[in-house]
Amino acid sequence: MITLYYAAHTCSLASHIALIDARADFTAVRISFAADEQRQPPYLAINPKGRVPAMVTPRGILTETPAMLAFIAQSFPAARLAPVGDAFAFAQVQAFNSYLCATLHVAHAHRMRGYRWADDAAAIAAMRRKVPQAVGDCYDLIERDMLKGPWVMGESYTICDPYLFTLAQWIEDDGVDPTRLPRVIDHRNRMSERAHVRRALAEELA
Amino acid sequence: MITLYYAAHTCSLASHIALIDARADFTAVRISFAADEQRQPPYLAINPKGRVPAMVTPRGILTETPAMLAFIAQSFPAARLAPVGDAFAFAQVQAFNSYLCATLHVAHAHRMRGYRWADDAAAIAAMRRKVPQAVGDCYDLIERDMLKGPWVMGESYTICDPYLFTLAQWIEDDGVDPTRLPRVIDHRNRMSERAHVRRALAEELA
Repeated sequence: MITLYYAAHTCSLASHIALIDARADFTAVRISFAADEQRQPPYLAINPKGRVPAMVTPRGILTETPAMLAFIAQSFPAARLAPVGDAFAFAQVQAFNSYLCATLHVAHAHRMRGYRWADDAAAIAAMRRKVPQAVGDCYDLIERDMLKGPWVMGESYTICDPYLFTLAQWIEDDGVDPTRLPRVIDHRNRMSERAHVRRALAEELA
Repeated sequence: MITLYYAAHTCSLASHIALIDARADFTAVRISFAADEQRQPPYLAINPKGRVPAMVTPRGILTETPAMLAFIAQSFPAARLAPVGDAFAFAQVQAFNSYLCATLHVAHAHRMRGYRWADDAAAIAAMRRKVPQAVGDCYDLIERDMLKGPWVMGESYTICDPYLFTLAQWIEDDGVDPTRLPRVIDHRNRMSERAHVRRALAEELA
């Protein structure tokens, strides 16, 4: 039994979808960012980073989306969510997800969480102004070089797909024109029609 | 045969050490940031992100330190650099490395690469001023909760160790007082005495 701690409209959606894809036995527990629950002692006891997602497994607690997605793929091999036995192919999956985590998501975070990296309001506003360019540059690279199609890694659906879909929810709010990203938007549209994705979104937004 | 593209004083040192740890057959090729080689067409053909590290393998090119380290561990199992067959233990390794990549290294990058996230000089200066706090907060968490000791994951040396060692080179320059991090500094000292680490540093700084 797995417990996923998530917050609506965050990157935890990726792990939520992957757990459904894996047909895992799990419970999803919502953390309210509006109530600042992620910084209260009960949640900090689970994840001292004060962020989502976190996943309680029978062996212990895991955090960090790329690691959680790899854990789900490796723990539920029947779902074939990643080529876990092929070191090179698995590393390509991990490289894509690492780019989403450390470059794209970080670029996006400068819109709402600039306080992590500067204290004064003018600097935080300056960061916010650059988000369309910084996020847009990431998506241009994904559109041109990284998204193989029809799925991120090509013919096989993997743990890269729910992660890209999750971050792609924010394209318009980040000020990036979606018409310059036809392949990313086509991927987002096809993902949004999948039953597992609809189920995860319905649970998170209920 | 593997080719590692690296630049001195960057995170590519982690993969360099791990390749030596793995006893891999590899060549290390230096990219000069001073000459802006990482943004020139020959290197962009290898890594369109314009960053180091990148690794050319017989199967293709890999980027992103956490993925490259996992690839090295999985490709050279005799070196026992990660518990690759244990989904939970491997995810713990990946979670640690993902935190270094997406949170600690990102906090550090605001000292020298603020231009990625804002255009005006005052904002870039404001980011630089917060680096001691943002980087220090990451190390406090590592010191208190994440570094199990004697190695990052406990009794076994893993791919987490060269990565932490690499980023820990920058603690003083990031304005963080090392005396508040006795366990991290002890780890750095023990790493710096290892023959493989000395060899990687000698090659990179020659």
